[in-house]
Amino acid sequence: MAASDKTGQPALDRRFMAAALRLSRKHAGRTATNPSVGTLIVRDDGAGPMIVGTGVTAVGGRPHAETEALAEAGALAHGATAYVTLEPCAHHGRTPPCANALVNAGVARVVGAASDPDPRVSGKGYEILRAAGIEVVEKVLAAEAAEQMAGYLIRSLRKRPEVILKLALSSDGKIGREGQGQVSITGDVARREVYLMRAEADGILVGIGTALEDDPALTVRLPGLENRSPARIVLDRQIRLPEASKLVSGVDRVPLYVAACLEADPQRRTVLERAGVRFIGTETHEGGVALPELLEDLAALGMASVLVEGGAKVASAFLAEELVDRIVLFQGPEAIGADGIASPIDADHIPAGFRKLRDMRFGEDSYAEWIRNI
Amino acid sequence: MAASDKTGQPALDRRFMAAALRLSRKHAGRTATNPSVGTLIVRDDGAGPMIVGTGVTAVGGRPHAETEALAEAGALAHGATAYVTLEPCAHHGRTPPCANALVNAGVARVVGAASDPDPRVSGKGYEILRAAGIEVVEKVLAAEAAEQMAGYLIRSLRKRPEVILKLALSSDGKIGREGQGQVSITGDVARREVYLMRAEADGILVGIGTALEDDPALTVRLPGLENRSPARIVLDRQIRLPEASKLVSGVDRVPLYVAACLEADPQRRTVLERAGVRFIGTETHEGGVALPELLEDLAALGMASVLVEGGAKVASAFLAEELVDRIVLFQGPEAIGADGIASPIDADHIPAGFRKLRDMRFGEDSYAEWIRNI
Repeated sequence: MAASDKTGQPALDRRFMAAALRLSRKHAGRTATNPSVGTLIVRDDGAGPMIVGTGVTAVGGRPHAETEALAEAGALAHGATAYVTLEPCAHHGRTPPCANALVNAGVARVVGAASDPDPRVSGKGYEILRAAGIEVVEKVLAAEAAEQMAGYLIRSLRKRPEVILKLALSSDGKIGREGQGQVSITGDVARREVYLMRAEADGILVGIGTALEDDPALTVRLPGLENRSPARIVLDRQIRLPEASKLVSGVDRVPLYVAACLEADPQRRTVLERAGVRFIGTETHEGGVALPELLEDLAALGMASVLVEGGAKVASAFLAEELVDRIVLFQGPEAIGADGIASPIDADHIPAGFRKLRDMRFGEDSYAEWIRNI
Repeated sequence: MAASDKTGQPALDRRFMAAALRLSRKHAGRTATNPSVGTLIVRDDGAGPMIVGTGVTAVGGRPHAETEALAEAGALAHGATAYVTLEPCAHHGRTPPCANALVNAGVARVVGAASDPDPRVSGKGYEILRAAGIEVVEKVLAAEAAEQMAGYLIRSLRKRPEVILKLALSSDGKIGREGQGQVSITGDVARREVYLMRAEADGILVGIGTALEDDPALTVRLPGLENRSPARIVLDRQIRLPEASKLVSGVDRVPLYVAACLEADPQRRTVLERAGVRFIGTETHEGGVALPELLEDLAALGMASVLVEGGAKVASAFLAEELVDRIVLFQGPEAIGADGIASPIDADHIPAGFRKLRDMRFGEDSYAEWIRNI
């Protein structure tokens, strides 16, 4: 990119980084415990910038995006600019770290978005590049990248998964009717969007109240994505979940974790364990599950994002403990009325520290999303 | 423990620590991503030391051992000695860390075995105790504790699971016959011991050669322990594993991961994914799977120990890369003969750096175990 490389062209850098970020979305939720990263290799031989290599973290998490993009660019990577949505990895296994691969390919300039908080990488990836004489520009569209990789970043930094609170509200701000099981608040289009959210999460969490009341399956029911259902987690201190529930009967297809306390009935535990349910021991705090400890255990199990889907009590507990990183509110056109269960949160009462990320519509339903800075 | 506390009685401390270590074995393999820790609270009111509280990490990983032992001891913990097989945790969630719980209970002395390498705990647990005026003795039976918690310690320190290489050898040092499928080398008693080893591991790994040749299920087949089967992992770069294999058909009961490279046939991948198989992307190194990268991914998925069960090529690769932490050799009484597949290792050729841990017999078969210092 010759001249533009040397003088710096923030607008151009932002444009290519935005493209790399769109590319990185391709494998979101499918890269196991690695983040889905995008890489573009761009060179300018005088006729304007041209993309000569594109890469995204492979499904399953490896190889990394840089490997793929450099392979595609081949000799054209020499003297080019690499756009990477995450700082290139710096720790050695049997294959060279991506930072060294960029050096070896003769890249002249690297533009990065998010820095990697992994202590084996943090700052070291960029250091390797600079030590080799490569020009490095950091933090281009860093906030956008952090939003897309929130799960990975939060798990690295805080040893817990990103917590996404999703609620479906009626037009009068209710989330259901007491004792009436699952109430349809949003339409088919919104439901499909929820399935996509589930497919990108590592876990879906509900309280035992919701599990008993709604008997949900909490799976992804979209053609072609049936096998993308993440693990389900039920907060169920006293192990009240029935063996005949959809959650338990689906355990052969999708893992189910029950977070229960030590004092719970060991017989109930044995029955569910024989059905294939896995247990997570919980500490209790003021009569409820100690959520930070539970989240720490979920992160250690490999989860970088957990979608909290209900009910009101569970949502309130996560909000009260400031453990929510992202809030997604769907709102349908119908009212439920005074006997409905009030939502613990609505668009007019988003806690301080969150910023609105987007507004959308799905059929008849509105969608709004807020995020807290990492 | 009055006098004995003040003067220090290493023999007594070792005796109680040995008991705490035996206790900690109770939940080995059942405490999710937390280590199985043992705690004893011992007091001496003049008539000799008396155990007033015992605790082991709960099944599922929480509460921690100290919580249980202190609850049992109640007021008797005041002025007593606590024996903990791992440094008490020091990081805050919603429940107080175990180090503070010991302080609050008025314990006079804490004897610890292993130190916790988790950066949120390392040294800090003991610091909290000392700052409160508690006498702390570290590293009592530290090597024994490290051996029992090897998975947890290695995952913390090296970001990979403990690798346990298990081989069954004939009397003439062969592990099977070429092209003859599964050959029975050891007897029923040894097989039951292997099931117990599997039940305590987080993963069982084989190469595609073994998977094709033997069609193993790699599950725990012991009454009452059927649900303790860990995840199975197959190194299968080109995705040759048949859908009709026992590994795939058992996927509804026990997770199966296939470690495959990006270039493998996407159609084969889709077929297996629809059957419920999960994929781990692999980097390749000199034609084989890059093992350190794969192990890093398995650790990130929550695995602290992986049992490598075959075949010769896979065993050789792990040994050549110095990625084996523990070697277990079973040896049966029968010879296979010159046409057998030679074992890559035998009792007379254990790599440098390993020390013999134990020799046992299971029926007609001998058992020997070596470990490398962490």
